[in-house]
Amino acid sequence: MFDIEKIRADFPILQRQINGKPLVYLDSGASAQKPRVVIDAVRDLYENDYANVHRGLHTLSNIATEKYEGTRAKVARFLGVKDEEEIVFTTGTTEGINLVSYAWAAPRFQPGDEIVLSVMEHHANIVPWHFLRERQGVVLKWVEPDVDGSLPPEKVLEAVTDKTRLIAITHMSNVLGTKVDVRTIAHAARAKGIATLVDGSQAAVHGPVDLEEIGADFYAITGHKLYGPSGSGAIHIRRERMAEMRPFLGGGDMIDTVTRDAVTYNKPPMKFEAGTPGIAQQIGMGVALDYLMGIGMDNIAAHEADLRDYTASKLQGLNWLNVQGTAPGKGAIFSMTLGGPAHPHDISTILDKRGVAVRAGHHCAGPLMEWLGVSAPARASFAMYNTRAEADALVSALELCNELLG
Amino acid sequence: MFDIEKIRADFPILQRQINGKPLVYLDSGASAQKPRVVIDAVRDLYENDYANVHRGLHTLSNIATEKYEGTRAKVARFLGVKDEEEIVFTTGTTEGINLVSYAWAAPRFQPGDEIVLSVMEHHANIVPWHFLRERQGVVLKWVEPDVDGSLPPEKVLEAVTDKTRLIAITHMSNVLGTKVDVRTIAHAARAKGIATLVDGSQAAVHGPVDLEEIGADFYAITGHKLYGPSGSGAIHIRRERMAEMRPFLGGGDMIDTVTRDAVTYNKPPMKFEAGTPGIAQQIGMGVALDYLMGIGMDNIAAHEADLRDYTASKLQGLNWLNVQGTAPGKGAIFSMTLGGPAHPHDISTILDKRGVAVRAGHHCAGPLMEWLGVSAPARASFAMYNTRAEADALVSALELCNELLG
Repeated sequence: MFDIEKIRADFPILQRQINGKPLVYLDSGASAQKPRVVIDAVRDLYENDYANVHRGLHTLSNIATEKYEGTRAKVARFLGVKDEEEIVFTTGTTEGINLVSYAWAAPRFQPGDEIVLSVMEHHANIVPWHFLRERQGVVLKWVEPDVDGSLPPEKVLEAVTDKTRLIAITHMSNVLGTKVDVRTIAHAARAKGIATLVDGSQAAVHGPVDLEEIGADFYAITGHKLYGPSGSGAIHIRRERMAEMRPFLGGGDMIDTVTRDAVTYNKPPMKFEAGTPGIAQQIGMGVALDYLMGIGMDNIAAHEADLRDYTASKLQGLNWLNVQGTAPGKGAIFSMTLGGPAHPHDISTILDKRGVAVRAGHHCAGPLMEWLGVSAPARASFAMYNTRAEADALVSALELCNELLG
Repeated sequence: MFDIEKIRADFPILQRQINGKPLVYLDSGASAQKPRVVIDAVRDLYENDYANVHRGLHTLSNIATEKYEGTRAKVARFLGVKDEEEIVFTTGTTEGINLVSYAWAAPRFQPGDEIVLSVMEHHANIVPWHFLRERQGVVLKWVEPDVDGSLPPEKVLEAVTDKTRLIAITHMSNVLGTKVDVRTIAHAARAKGIATLVDGSQAAVHGPVDLEEIGADFYAITGHKLYGPSGSGAIHIRRERMAEMRPFLGGGDMIDTVTRDAVTYNKPPMKFEAGTPGIAQQIGMGVALDYLMGIGMDNIAAHEADLRDYTASKLQGLNWLNVQGTAPGKGAIFSMTLGGPAHPHDISTILDKRGVAVRAGHHCAGPLMEWLGVSAPARASFAMYNTRAEADALVSALELCNELLG
């Protein structure tokens, strides 16, 4: 049972006023707000149970370690992963993808080796691969979506050649909302001996994810979009890929022995987790995932599908507004430009006067902006705590924009 | 004015009982507890002002960005740095040192180039350099301390040859408490065209640090030891070294433009800060630094010097106890082993029964353990909120250990 009023009441910030109006937070694609259980878990840890993890033998350290390590099983359950040791903690998707780039790809890829990317990727899933292009001559092969923003898996697979080593692809575009059939891609890639990395930053927030079924080699998520603390995150890495990876960050915890002459490394996943980790953040992310699983990702998906359909139909009626991306089954993310000379930054500013928080900019998606032929659309991104009334507030504020700027 | 009772009242966890005894927290060397102002700042952000930073134009994003970026100036002020753009945010010292290793050293160092390290380094300041040894033939040169744990700067400088490219040295040993004269080292190194990296994880917590005066090229600190949130941190990098560095983590925020064919990078420090950062953590670290500067680092140093002297004199009376490290001016950190067959893990466990939290293990200092000839000393590490009465509690619990294990 999805009780939107109860959920809204769980998020303290949603009571806030902005410029004298109730906050209508439509920027969850950039970062989601936090439920009280998450905020309380962080506070409670610091007030009662905080210590460094792993290396202690005293009570606080044991409690903190148990809570911290408990998150690993929660991430595994949330993503449909059987073996929790395939979960590596990160500070978010950016670190997760850089881990793969530095620890798996860089020492293995040769000049001329190819990585297939979609034009819809977020910079977090572009720049680490540009590094390999700049530093070791890896070639990036780009796949464009269809005109509505859809990305048929066949199109991605058509870009594969005998030099392809990796397909790095988003599960859901942070600009268009397009959902990508990563299962078909990952299975076909595997059959050809090609690895698949999926950027799950957006998709994992908006519906159930079953990695057993998807079968990708790497799947990165970020806690702050999943209603967890900033600086939390994880990446699922299949065991056989882990075995191929050298360490990335060096420091405490990821070693077995260190002498002056040599170092031996800890077993995965610890091998990839150096130094004092984001203790409170990862514990908070675990609480956020429990909260989401308690509500049910299917229920969240259904609620957001309703918001998507309702909002899409309202926006369709605004003939002075261009909405980018209308792929079937897309997420409730709407990037928009006004006809005429109005700058999207002005849209964001005017909407803010009405309490409606949307983001304007390149949305960390340079190649997609170029493909769309826009520079900085305004983006309204919905989350589980949003309502139809908030979609109405968005539309009404957009009408004001048109009046003032159109 | 240093009011210990007022300070203790600022830390909620110090009210806690462990095994029916008041918590005597002597594990701050691993991670410090958090004052209420820090806990409240994190909570307040999530409840009232949270959004992603940098990329938004709406009210919440602007507030969060202002708070987040405000921390940079606080770090600069705390470290005596004039140019806040020389401060790069990290998740802690481990990430900071890896940043230097990957972004500055790796692309510049040739096989046979030498890095001078002390045997007292923490694994965070060892393993990133072992990577360079393993991956590109860099040579590590080790400097041993004197028998009391002192490390005269001349000893470090004697290890310099014409192949030395970097001196990577701790400002305070996390095991022995030895304070290192990094100023003399950095100035002499600079005169020879050699860079210096200082691990400030411990030293910056226990007394004033003036980086203008020290003159190192890189100085890393970690927020969680500075009474700030887990996952917070920063590194000071001199502008001329920043100019020599390629980017490390790739993703949002650190770029200027991204196309399919090329990427251009943002200016430092943003060039080195990829993706959504630890928003709440860095804001919390700023609050912690304000709190410390409000008390005064000189006052903290004086209080801890008293604790050190008091504790040292008490421990000296225990003729069945070996304390590692007695360097003049050391920090209030005491690593200890019992004579006889007792395992230090047992010490930690017994102390915990009395509410006294100490850590036992290799303390992420493998080469130092080897040099000391011990495997896992118990370490009592004091912080500004500790008292002489707590030192007494430690001694009394150690006496119980001796009774049971000696």
